[in-house]
Amino acid sequence: MASLSWLLTDVEQRVWLENFAVGPQETGVGAGTAWSIRKSVLHGGLCDGVDFIEVDNGAFRFSLVPTRGMGLWRGDYRGQFVGWRAPIKGPVHPHHVHLTERGGLGWLSGFDEAIVRCGLDWTGGPGNDIAPNNNGTPVQTPHTLHGRIANVPASRVAVEVIPGKVPVLVVTGEVEESSLFLPQFTLRTRISTELGSNVVHIRDEIVNRKSAPAEFELLYHCNFGPPFLEKGAELLVPSRLVAPRDAHAATEIATCGRYGAPTAGYVERCYWYEPVGDAAGNSLAMLRNAAGERAVIMRFSVRQLPCFTQWKNIGPLAEGYVTGLEPGTDYPNAKPFERQQGRVQVIPAGGTYVAEIALEVQDTAAGVAQVAKEIATLQKRAKCKVSKRPLASHTPL
Amino acid sequence: MASLSWLLTDVEQRVWLENFAVGPQETGVGAGTAWSIRKSVLHGGLCDGVDFIEVDNGAFRFSLVPTRGMGLWRGDYRGQFVGWRAPIKGPVHPHHVHLTERGGLGWLSGFDEAIVRCGLDWTGGPGNDIAPNNNGTPVQTPHTLHGRIANVPASRVAVEVIPGKVPVLVVTGEVEESSLFLPQFTLRTRISTELGSNVVHIRDEIVNRKSAPAEFELLYHCNFGPPFLEKGAELLVPSRLVAPRDAHAATEIATCGRYGAPTAGYVERCYWYEPVGDAAGNSLAMLRNAAGERAVIMRFSVRQLPCFTQWKNIGPLAEGYVTGLEPGTDYPNAKPFERQQGRVQVIPAGGTYVAEIALEVQDTAAGVAQVAKEIATLQKRAKCKVSKRPLASHTPL
Amino acid sequence: MASLSWLLTDVEQRVWLENFAVGPQETGVGAGTAWSIRKSVLHGGLCDGVDFIEVDNGAFRFSLVPTRGMGLWRGDYRGQFVGWRAPIKGPVHPHHVHLTERGGLGWLSGFDEAIVRCGLDWTGGPGNDIAPNNNGTPVQTPHTLHGRIANVPASRVAVEVIPGKVPVLVVTGEVEESSLFLPQFTLRTRISTELGSNVVHIRDEIVNRKSAPAEFELLYHCNFGPPFLEKGAELLVPSRLVAPRDAHAATEIATCGRYGAPTAGYVERCYWYEPVGDAAGNSLAMLRNAAGERAVIMRFSVRQLPCFTQWKNIGPLAEGYVTGLEPGTDYPNAKPFERQQGRVQVIPAGGTYVAEIALEVQDTAAGVAQVAKEIATLQKRAKCKVSKRPLASHTPL
Repeated sequence: MASLSWLLTDVEQRVWLENFAVGPQETGVGAGTAWSIRKSVLHGGLCDGVDFIEVDNGAFRFSLVPTRGMGLWRGDYRGQFVGWRAPIKGPVHPHHVHLTERGGLGWLSGFDEAIVRCGLDWTGGPGNDIAPNNNGTPVQTPHTLHGRIANVPASRVAVEVIPGKVPVLVVTGEVEESSLFLPQFTLRTRISTELGSNVVHIRDEIVNRKSAPAEFELLYHCNFGPPFLEKGAELLVPSRLVAPRDAHAATEIATCGRYGAPTAGYVERCYWYEPVGDAAGNSLAMLRNAAGERAVIMRFSVRQLPCFTQWKNIGPLAEGYVTGLEPGTDYPNAKPFERQQGRVQVIPAGGTYVAEIALEVQDTAAGVAQVAKEIATLQKRAKCKVSKRPLASHTPL
Repeated sequence: MASLSWLLTDVEQRVWLENFAVGPQETGVGAGTAWSIRKSVLHGGLCDGVDFIEVDNGAFRFSLVPTRGMGLWRGDYRGQFVGWRAPIKGPVHPHHVHLTERGGLGWLSGFDEAIVRCGLDWTGGPGNDIAPNNNGTPVQTPHTLHGRIANVPASRVAVEVIPGKVPVLVVTGEVEESSLFLPQFTLRTRISTELGSNVVHIRDEIVNRKSAPAEFELLYHCNFGPPFLEKGAELLVPSRLVAPRDAHAATEIATCGRYGAPTAGYVERCYWYEPVGDAAGNSLAMLRNAAGERAVIMRFSVRQLPCFTQWKNIGPLAEGYVTGLEPGTDYPNAKPFERQQGRVQVIPAGGTYVAEIALEVQDTAAGVAQVAKEIATLQKRAKCKVSKRPLASHTPL
Repeated sequence: MASLSWLLTDVEQRVWLENFAVGPQETGVGAGTAWSIRKSVLHGGLCDGVDFIEVDNGAFRFSLVPTRGMGLWRGDYRGQFVGWRAPIKGPVHPHHVHLTERGGLGWLSGFDEAIVRCGLDWTGGPGNDIAPNNNGTPVQTPHTLHGRIANVPASRVAVEVIPGKVPVLVVTGEVEESSLFLPQFTLRTRISTELGSNVVHIRDEIVNRKSAPAEFELLYHCNFGPPFLEKGAELLVPSRLVAPRDAHAATEIATCGRYGAPTAGYVERCYWYEPVGDAAGNSLAMLRNAAGERAVIMRFSVRQLPCFTQWKNIGPLAEGYVTGLEPGTDYPNAKPFERQQGRVQVIPAGGTYVAEIALEVQDTAAGVAQVAKEIATLQKRAKCKVSKRPLASHTPL
């Protein structure tokens, strides 16, 4: 039986389905499982007009937002909420997000996803870079926090169901971060999950459509609150280096991987990691709860995403008690600094950069222990240096 | 008979009605009166996608705009137009309003309501304040004219009809001015009118959802043109102080309460009032026409809204011949100045600030005279000092 | 038989048709020709919510975009594509365009039309002008590239079919570039074509609704790629003067009217022309392909549009291989410079400025030769001075 596919959105072909739903009945696939893929349009408030796709593999439900650059909004694995509670009622339509506002922090006004991409021209900021204007003259170019891609709607969205012993549910999307006299990237994402699985796979191809090489930065801002984050929760990352972003982060470097309860007045801290991969480059990071019976894991390749950032933001629950597990091509510093450190990737003319991540949930002590063991094994491949102070190689001092 | 209620929008519950209408027939309430509450979505031009609610109590019709922070767009009381004719064709969808444009005056591009709230983080501007950024570092934060709340769509909207001897029509809404690393306010508004009444009541609760006290400013920008505003029209506010905003306003301080005909080249003037309330704090301001047979009245409490601003903008009709009657928690100066003068309110963690205003129309000489008498009585409670020059306590000099 | 007309959008009357279509059957007009006028709303990606009108006169098909200031998106004349391939998938909804971004170049993020108007308050930029703020105080006012009008949705759109020997298809629209304390212009456009014709006529009335004279700038940015633009293509403009915009453009002044193949790394060049008209002021510009068998022509009046700008942007195909033929009231320099050179038009209070252009396609060698002859005849009316260097009268040096 061939795979089944449906085109939901194609701007060039003028295809767009306002509503869509498939499951076992419509497809004859996976008859024993209550799986579904549904698409709708949200209405009201800041969500008005947002395209919304809900995938349920029978165990893991998660939502994707084509209107917000194909981000993964939230999930639920066998009753465990996967994501965080931002102090906004999203997903927020990009037309309510003005990146230049708040001194370049406008991106925050739309930020409430579990997994949101930062990039593709830059991931850091706010700050200034030097880039050619329409006359080719290098001019000061303001960078806003975390780049543009999260606020660009997908121009093409499709759904695929692959039959077989273990059927696979797939959503693909294309997002263009492109404009005259700017870099021209196409992000082609494939988000997939097997029926009954505890994993969501995200495979991204970033194409440089230009006739010249293009600098590029990409960071997966993966954000989780309770029930994984709680007092006594811990972040495990097999690493050769951990360093604080700044003096403020340095004050907690000794316990950077451990989390406290929601704390009024807590100001975010960030830590830079150099993760260790296996012989093939495969690595991971795990946020496990205090009792060690529940965890969310991000898997990635250090060949594709060699830098890892921890965002620790354990303010009050209502204000966003959350931590970010962020594999990236580099660190979310201002681009000129990352360039100077040789960490900004360059995609050749017409070339493609591939990045793959997986979001995994464990909800048993045995499962969590197994992943912890995996991390411990990887950690044996390198000694971890913990820097008590910000490093000139990692932080603009 | 219990009250009847309908939920029109709830972003969290994914409730949204594109169209809605109730009246005597649907409810069995107020059978003798041709009242109605209708909801629709506007299309075309700058209005495209705007949610729009029209309430008609049988005598007073008015429209509310959930998409624009639950503002009151326009009204009509027994044939008298209540509002003004801005030089734009609104109500304008917030996605066409870029607050930072025009040097921070972008708010004006969406401004055409009879009653629009300014706030909640600040009401004045444009200017700079110092506020913590995402790292907790105090940085220069640009404030744009009149704040954000008017351009935030309501996340929850409901309608209620309360039966009884005099049935009451109610629209409630929730608007969130909130984001990560920003103040987190919820505005809960209840807008109500009795069948056949000449009054619309607005009761606002502003909730500080944060775990720390939050500064807050609120101003009701209530704007009226003809047939209330005309040559010889007059503004009456029982006051202990009136002062011009600047030297330009000072040139007409002696006649600040009187209005001329539409005047080409007229540049707006503003005046600060300290209104006098009764023993319970109740006060009011009235704009009456030249013949004194027609008036629009704003009622408010000086305990909630101790400051009153008059906006006098009597340019040509097509350019916006209008005056603003603006009760507020303080004056719409830049926030640092208002803070320095001790006028910026602080809501404790989790606390609520309540503000109530009423919009009233009189269309008989007797009715107008009665209100004028009420004002005169209040004025007896204090001597009114009129400052010929801007005051250092009220204007940054 | 009277003309037939339909109102598609009227914001004030709350008229809006989501879909609309007429042709010979619905009208009884032009029965022998497969003509049509259709209106729809686009969905998905950056186009979501864009009103779209497609006119087909039986030979010339073209699309108009009410949501983008009544621009002409693309056309097709007997199989020849009219327009260009921008590196975005538009037409782009204005809510994705933030004019102040990219250092004032945000306009580019929505730019992909064949014919787009620049103006009406200014056409050049980015840069700063001095203009009165809400207090009448002259303040620095940032101008963003090419002004606002292209990103303002039409408030009124209508369709007309005029029967007769040669029936005429007409679309009219009104776009308001207007706001409190800003200039108040209404653009009334009438876009028409005869059945079977190779010409689209655009007649614009720009009304100054203010009680005071208003400065005004207008430029028609008309953009074409293949199959008209190609290696060996040529631009012919009967002129008394041609000058390079800057030193970069000066390097190719000798061959400014000739085009090369798509060239990686090509940086745009602009040239200023003073076109020559006939006794009635009629002039034109033609872009013809290398073989001279295919051409696109812009006709205009030098009395209405005395300045002509050539935009030469022959980068790689995928990055926007395109040239602009741009008749205007002046040149798209920053407004203060154009004002200083006496080229900024002033419309009196309540007055109207009329500008007419026509888009014509020739697809035979004979047709192209005829237009070339017309241009040669006009050129005889004046000697053409070609300046090798930028001129102080045309370029801020």
